[in-house]
Amino acid sequence: MAETEVRKIIIDCDPGHDDAIAILLAGANPKVELIGITTVAGNAEVDKTTINALKVCEIAGLKDVPVAKGSAQPLVRKRETAADIHGDSGMDGPSLPAPTKTIAAEHAVDFIIRELLASDGDITLIPVAPLTNIAMAMRKEPAIVPKIREIVLMGGGTFGNWTPAAEFNIFVDAEAAKVVFESGVPLTMFGLDLTHKAQATPEIQERFKQIGNPVSDFVVELLQFFMHTYKEVFGFDGAPVHDACCVAYCIDPSIFTCRKLHVDIETKGEFSYGMTVVDMLGVTGKEPNVNVALELDQDKFWDMMIGTMSNYSKTL
Amino acid sequence: MAETEVRKIIIDCDPGHDDAIAILLAGANPKVELIGITTVAGNAEVDKTTINALKVCEIAGLKDVPVAKGSAQPLVRKRETAADIHGDSGMDGPSLPAPTKTIAAEHAVDFIIRELLASDGDITLIPVAPLTNIAMAMRKEPAIVPKIREIVLMGGGTFGNWTPAAEFNIFVDAEAAKVVFESGVPLTMFGLDLTHKAQATPEIQERFKQIGNPVSDFVVELLQFFMHTYKEVFGFDGAPVHDACCVAYCIDPSIFTCRKLHVDIETKGEFSYGMTVVDMLGVTGKEPNVNVALELDQDKFWDMMIGTMSNYSKTL
Amino acid sequence: MAETEVRKIIIDCDPGHDDAIAILLAGANPKVELIGITTVAGNAEVDKTTINALKVCEIAGLKDVPVAKGSAQPLVRKRETAADIHGDSGMDGPSLPAPTKTIAAEHAVDFIIRELLASDGDITLIPVAPLTNIAMAMRKEPAIVPKIREIVLMGGGTFGNWTPAAEFNIFVDAEAAKVVFESGVPLTMFGLDLTHKAQATPEIQERFKQIGNPVSDFVVELLQFFMHTYKEVFGFDGAPVHDACCVAYCIDPSIFTCRKLHVDIETKGEFSYGMTVVDMLGVTGKEPNVNVALELDQDKFWDMMIGTMSNYSKTL
Amino acid sequence: MAETEVRKIIIDCDPGHDDAIAILLAGANPKVELIGITTVAGNAEVDKTTINALKVCEIAGLKDVPVAKGSAQPLVRKRETAADIHGDSGMDGPSLPAPTKTIAAEHAVDFIIRELLASDGDITLIPVAPLTNIAMAMRKEPAIVPKIREIVLMGGGTFGNWTPAAEFNIFVDAEAAKVVFESGVPLTMFGLDLTHKAQATPEIQERFKQIGNPVSDFVVELLQFFMHTYKEVFGFDGAPVHDACCVAYCIDPSIFTCRKLHVDIETKGEFSYGMTVVDMLGVTGKEPNVNVALELDQDKFWDMMIGTMSNYSKTL
Repeated sequence: MAETEVRKIIIDCDPGHDDAIAILLAGANPKVELIGITTVAGNAEVDKTTINALKVCEIAGLKDVPVAKGSAQPLVRKRETAADIHGDSGMDGPSLPAPTKTIAAEHAVDFIIRELLASDGDITLIPVAPLTNIAMAMRKEPAIVPKIREIVLMGGGTFGNWTPAAEFNIFVDAEAAKVVFESGVPLTMFGLDLTHKAQATPEIQERFKQIGNPVSDFVVELLQFFMHTYKEVFGFDGAPVHDACCVAYCIDPSIFTCRKLHVDIETKGEFSYGMTVVDMLGVTGKEPNVNVALELDQDKFWDMMIGTMSNYSKTL
Repeated sequence: MAETEVRKIIIDCDPGHDDAIAILLAGANPKVELIGITTVAGNAEVDKTTINALKVCEIAGLKDVPVAKGSAQPLVRKRETAADIHGDSGMDGPSLPAPTKTIAAEHAVDFIIRELLASDGDITLIPVAPLTNIAMAMRKEPAIVPKIREIVLMGGGTFGNWTPAAEFNIFVDAEAAKVVFESGVPLTMFGLDLTHKAQATPEIQERFKQIGNPVSDFVVELLQFFMHTYKEVFGFDGAPVHDACCVAYCIDPSIFTCRKLHVDIETKGEFSYGMTVVDMLGVTGKEPNVNVALELDQDKFWDMMIGTMSNYSKTL
Repeated sequence: MAETEVRKIIIDCDPGHDDAIAILLAGANPKVELIGITTVAGNAEVDKTTINALKVCEIAGLKDVPVAKGSAQPLVRKRETAADIHGDSGMDGPSLPAPTKTIAAEHAVDFIIRELLASDGDITLIPVAPLTNIAMAMRKEPAIVPKIREIVLMGGGTFGNWTPAAEFNIFVDAEAAKVVFESGVPLTMFGLDLTHKAQATPEIQERFKQIGNPVSDFVVELLQFFMHTYKEVFGFDGAPVHDACCVAYCIDPSIFTCRKLHVDIETKGEFSYGMTVVDMLGVTGKEPNVNVALELDQDKFWDMMIGTMSNYSKTL
Repeated sequence: MAETEVRKIIIDCDPGHDDAIAILLAGANPKVELIGITTVAGNAEVDKTTINALKVCEIAGLKDVPVAKGSAQPLVRKRETAADIHGDSGMDGPSLPAPTKTIAAEHAVDFIIRELLASDGDITLIPVAPLTNIAMAMRKEPAIVPKIREIVLMGGGTFGNWTPAAEFNIFVDAEAAKVVFESGVPLTMFGLDLTHKAQATPEIQERFKQIGNPVSDFVVELLQFFMHTYKEVFGFDGAPVHDACCVAYCIDPSIFTCRKLHVDIETKGEFSYGMTVVDMLGVTGKEPNVNVALELDQDKFWDMMIGTMSNYSKTL
């Protein structure tokens, strides 16, 4: 029965405040099985994002979920990070103890390849960071391409946040994005059009506070820091939980309204490098290659978020 | 007194249904003085757009407004027209008699240069077509640049209608747009964000019909043809009067809400050539160079439109 | 009889040391009729290159050759000059009296258009500067295109002198070059492959010195300054008379060996903007569109050069 | 003593006629130690180039040299092969038995990473194919970068053979080339300027024929096929042994004249994508980053080639 289906997912991330929330959501919702976390340079250097991923696993009690470290730099370009959004550590705000959990022996790219080749084609990849690891895995072992059930990614949109045209994850490694978007794998894109609507307002944050377990307290700290930087940089009144939307979609796709559209990745532009060129009006006549998330049901979304976080234990 | 000010304008156009409405609006509103019309290739070949401009002048009784023919091709690129939107003539739909009015002896570029050099810096240019003539005039005679009061143009936006990223007028001659946008002249841009909101719905069309003079009847015919193509191509329920918005702004800027933003023109992109890259969130840190129209007061706009068209004589 | 044919030429230039020699060559050789000189920004600002052109006409006694001032800036890009090669005046070295001759009333672009439209298709354009004027004329009045007998230009090559890939004249206005190279007009290109072989060595300079008229003395001064800068910047032992080659070709094409090849103009490249991409090995399969000068007969060339300069009067 | 130094090399190739000769040269010359061969898509699909590499090892008796299969596609672009130059098999002409030797278990990228990390920084990489494997290894494990002694590559030049501006190896994966050329690793480039001078003429081929061992007979067959295609496509009278030059340089650098120059990789150009932009005249003012091979001593080169091939056994 579809109702009892549990989606196997790998989260490829660069925690990152909203990355952390995505992991925590996956860690406690019975509709998804988190079979691994891979890390990549993005919001911060890969060594930092990997430490952050380990810390998040530790607080969530995800002892058996392997964390494999991945690419330290984009496929072709020089590295760029987002310290003004996520702070120097990549996850400033909450202070967590150093993790006891250790990094997997395997490189993220090899972990992804091995898991996919060994699978029945039932693994969904959730990249919520620059697409370097995913693209490199596709190029190192093209046989994985038909084995991927779906890629549900956070990135892009019809407008940008890093440049006027480009969102950070895609901008940082647009060449990797080009590889992934042209791969033919079923792709659902959570771009800024959607994720800027998934803002944890002070009211929502209050609901998280009410849960009262260590994980939800941690979530509140993440949201507070994040809301503060979004207020300062973009003038927002809430903290957008970008990356969590992708996991939410795997838990309950009915939360979101999507449209199948054609999307190209701009890698040549002078002012639009890293743009996801979304054919909203259908003027190209090209076949849709991406399922683009555009709207969300706020009640359903936050109820599910808060319900899931309540699953965590009241004690560490 | 500001109230009694009459703005001198030159309309640079490629009629074009909405171009025609822009001319008609300028021709009967006491707040603007139409000192000339220049034509350019765009919606159709320049010979056709020039004939159409003459016909519009004829029906509007604009005997003394010179019509100067301009560039037949973009500054650098090959020519591209929009026959699927405006029909083969560039203004399909209404059938008008061949004009008796004749084309000015001067080239549009020379007309613009001469008028500006002779002026007190009080002329506003209203390009509602590819910016070829304006750019060429600026390059042929750089001394005109500080003489232009303002350029109020129809073009661009945060999304496209000719490609997913580019609006037709800018796409057709993005190099010319680059010249104009980098010129330092005060610039107000009516892009698709605004003009798609200026749709003459069937209800609005009914109001034009009620006016009952030959010009308003002609406007209704234009709107009906245009609504039909916009329905077919874009699924719209009304006819957007893109170009008329620029003239409306010169008549009464209070109709519109604008924001001063930085805009760059993309001339290198693979999928985003011709895009006006609008820095909506202020992420570039660059100084605003464009006043971008974003909202309009529907009532004020249509009342002014219909009021002006009522000024035309009930008989030819 | 072909022998008695006199080619009508217009030199479009930015003097410039070698531009001056080109004018002087045209001014005294019976095989060409110099019907006009047009100027453009390039080696220096257009005001300076125009003054220089007037001075050269004055010393050469070219009283009846009109000098029409042209474009002050490239078609699309910002202006760039070559002060390190030609000095601040654009023609540093010789000191000439201020000219008494005056600039034509007409803009260079209009002069070119008028002459071509009035001609029997027998005028050859010799642009030895950025192609701004020529491109603008083609765009302002497309009817001139089939009236041009041939364009014999100095520019481009299989290597660059301003960037590793681009020669100065093409780099400064690559968009204009694109217009000209794609125009379909018969085109002969004197690029660096050829012009770097047309070096006035100290021995050749001695021969000019022997002529002993005011013009040849002026030529010697030009060559000495130019040799000095080429020694310093490029390590050359002679002064390349780039622009004079184009006029020499119109006087006696048998001096040069040319090949018909396909040439594209690069306007998008990050490191190769302004390159003339010459298909030397025929790998594109595209039709040749340019007659590319590759070799010259040194004896024939310098004999003709020195013979022509000897035609000038021994007294001013 | 330098004289007795033996350079450890890994050849990264896509055999390929000249690739085969490069391997054979490395296999029998005491100045180099071939510690591995890695393969990549290029002249043909990677499955074919890998089979070809195995066959070449077999005929050369290179039983202990591992052959590791690498990338099937470029880093970002779609795959492109050179069947019109090397035939459908990638090494048409000679017919060799199916190899008994087998492919290494490791991926080429992992082989390169492991060998470099385990080394004392004394391994030279010799990529004579698209640079996909090398770039991917650098990105997967950045710690290898300072461990590479030198990269001696076949690719690029001041002109192209696949497009007018680009040589095949660089064109096929210009993004990978960008990674490698910007890595900071000491780089010696054998581009077409050099390799088109390393042509095995019929006279040279006759000298190979005189050797009379199975390997030299195989070399003759390779040269004959290759000469034929170069005659047909480029009008050459000999077979350029492009890739062998890189190995020759590791054996005896004194054969070649090189200059340290700045080289950029063009990845944006419309007509110059994949060009190695070589700053021959020093106009950029940028620090040299590449040692560019420009001339070779024909006698020394062919004597060494023929001497080395004579080292192979007279019997299989």
